[in-house]
Amino acid sequence: MSAPRSYAQDLPRQAADLLDRVRTGSPRVHCLMNTVVQKLVADGLSAIGAVPSMTSSVEEVQAFVRKADALVVNLGTLDAQRREAVGLALDTAAEVEKPWVLDPAHCDYSPLRAAFAQELLARGPAILRANAAEHLLLEVPSDIVGVRTGEEDRIDLSARTAMIGNGHPFMAKVTGTGCLSGAVIAAFVAIGDDRFIAAASAMLVMGVAAEIAARTMRGPASFGIELLDVLYRLSAQDIAQVARCR
Amino acid sequence: MSAPRSYAQDLPRQAADLLDRVRTGSPRVHCLMNTVVQKLVADGLSAIGAVPSMTSSVEEVQAFVRKADALVVNLGTLDAQRREAVGLALDTAAEVEKPWVLDPAHCDYSPLRAAFAQELLARGPAILRANAAEHLLLEVPSDIVGVRTGEEDRIDLSARTAMIGNGHPFMAKVTGTGCLSGAVIAAFVAIGDDRFIAAASAMLVMGVAAEIAARTMRGPASFGIELLDVLYRLSAQDIAQVARCR
Amino acid sequence: MSAPRSYAQDLPRQAADLLDRVRTGSPRVHCLMNTVVQKLVADGLSAIGAVPSMTSSVEEVQAFVRKADALVVNLGTLDAQRREAVGLALDTAAEVEKPWVLDPAHCDYSPLRAAFAQELLARGPAILRANAAEHLLLEVPSDIVGVRTGEEDRIDLSARTAMIGNGHPFMAKVTGTGCLSGAVIAAFVAIGDDRFIAAASAMLVMGVAAEIAARTMRGPASFGIELLDVLYRLSAQDIAQVARCR
Repeated sequence: MSAPRSYAQDLPRQAADLLDRVRTGSPRVHCLMNTVVQKLVADGLSAIGAVPSMTSSVEEVQAFVRKADALVVNLGTLDAQRREAVGLALDTAAEVEKPWVLDPAHCDYSPLRAAFAQELLARGPAILRANAAEHLLLEVPSDIVGVRTGEEDRIDLSARTAMIGNGHPFMAKVTGTGCLSGAVIAAFVAIGDDRFIAAASAMLVMGVAAEIAARTMRGPASFGIELLDVLYRLSAQDIAQVARCR
Repeated sequence: MSAPRSYAQDLPRQAADLLDRVRTGSPRVHCLMNTVVQKLVADGLSAIGAVPSMTSSVEEVQAFVRKADALVVNLGTLDAQRREAVGLALDTAAEVEKPWVLDPAHCDYSPLRAAFAQELLARGPAILRANAAEHLLLEVPSDIVGVRTGEEDRIDLSARTAMIGNGHPFMAKVTGTGCLSGAVIAAFVAIGDDRFIAAASAMLVMGVAAEIAARTMRGPASFGIELLDVLYRLSAQDIAQVARCR
Repeated sequence: MSAPRSYAQDLPRQAADLLDRVRTGSPRVHCLMNTVVQKLVADGLSAIGAVPSMTSSVEEVQAFVRKADALVVNLGTLDAQRREAVGLALDTAAEVEKPWVLDPAHCDYSPLRAAFAQELLARGPAILRANAAEHLLLEVPSDIVGVRTGEEDRIDLSARTAMIGNGHPFMAKVTGTGCLSGAVIAAFVAIGDDRFIAAASAMLVMGVAAEIAARTMRGPASFGIELLDVLYRLSAQDIAQVARCR
């Protein structure tokens, strides 16, 4: 068996264990997200047993980060107030040593966004979750877990690699499922000891849930509902049966 | 029969009557809510037959309150602009004598929020809807209906008390159902003559609908959909059969 | 056959053709909408095969409009920042000659809103989508397609008229379906050669989808889910069978 494969062979069991620990441990995840996706991300985090919070008010964000177990920062809409809120949130995350996930959404869109994403990356997220085009633009230090989304998702940390083949095209038709993946990673990282395993497990859980949701959906909107319902009731057996990782 | 019980024995019938009056009277409810929950609250109000409006723009909020039959103020995200909008909305509500509901969400979170909640309470809401931790921090004048949410919901106005045992744990998994309860109270208060009965009726309707929704849901997201569908078609018989109040 | 009828007799086939071209062409539609409806509109556009974007940040809106194939401007919440973003977006739309749809929501609400709507109308939208009360307040140049929503929707461009009888009362119970109609018109206009046919086709598709969705829904919330699912899978045969236009 090849070296990369060895990191993924236990992943279904590890993912099931971590999901169980999220359900019993109820980690708090603070989310800096755009307004479009906040409700889906909050309900998705609740579905896996985590506790979401969402404020990006500069007056309150630090108090919420202080109470959180992990943080996810999604570039979302970039304006001056939001950039300030992100900076304040990361100051607190560093102070209280909370892990955070960076989702540099659309940083391939303009040099301004790419520069801001690189600046955030320099502040040391535990995980970078981005698609191939976004990854290309960013220089990622070797101590950050890279989650590269695509046909197959790839998770890297120095010499360790896991590839996850699960997922469904309808995730692209429901605004916010990618943002939710970033938040689920944050929940798993909050509860897990190994952030490489945590990130890979979160991506596996999302991908498996998407495939199961697709079995009963009647279109993209019911897929979005089913996805959260499946996340809520997903079992270790579901993960073991549906997982395609290497 | 004990004294507290006497206030609740007619509640299922009263709640059904008031729900019917909301459906035929279509009260307008203006909502000052955070962006995460606005869509659920708007659709939930529409489901019971009320007409929602949502702006918290300082330039327009007073015009909307003027046209509304009741108002619900949810602390939600607190920033300077929002506090200003709340103040303007309450100025108009006082001027045109519209009843309003205060939901001091997370006022147990920081002294700043608690102080702002107490300040709003001094402006005379018809109803205070809060959980036990939030209630503990606030001094409530005896002419305000207190709705204390929990395992069992308790509604108080001076010597009158009603206890409602209906509800479902999944309400905590769908962001905004609590905020919706506050908005439904506002719709019932807008149409009812007795705000104690109106508040208790609204809580009973929400709790009964949640239990019926839970019968057919497949997880938290379909529960959220079912909840609104059930609110739309809830009958007097449903309420009579499912109600657990004393 | 009377003159107005002649413009609608081919509409079911034309609508099916345009829907097919949206699905294969994936036009980008930038939406200036209030926060309440953004998620529904984004998911509805994705359901028909278009690609939504939503930012109303003054710093980024022009870059997004430049990449879009059409634009929809919904008055939504009116504040100073939003008015500025709308102005910037329309500057870019004019510069790069992208068609846009104006939805002057609630412009019958205050003289301020009516004045702003009239000002936007003077900047030359391809389409004006409004209800009868809103239309009454506005002076529409003859080169703008007028979509007047109501019991029956009426589409006008100079001497051409089409009337569409499809739809469902539950559209009024799901916040944002009207806004979604405006966005669907923008997607059809982006891809169509004749904006009168494009606008009428979009309204027909929405109305037919609503009627089909109503067959299986259990209340207003499941209607909202079904509506998007039906939009995703709507066939030429569905449109031909259900269409009521003249």
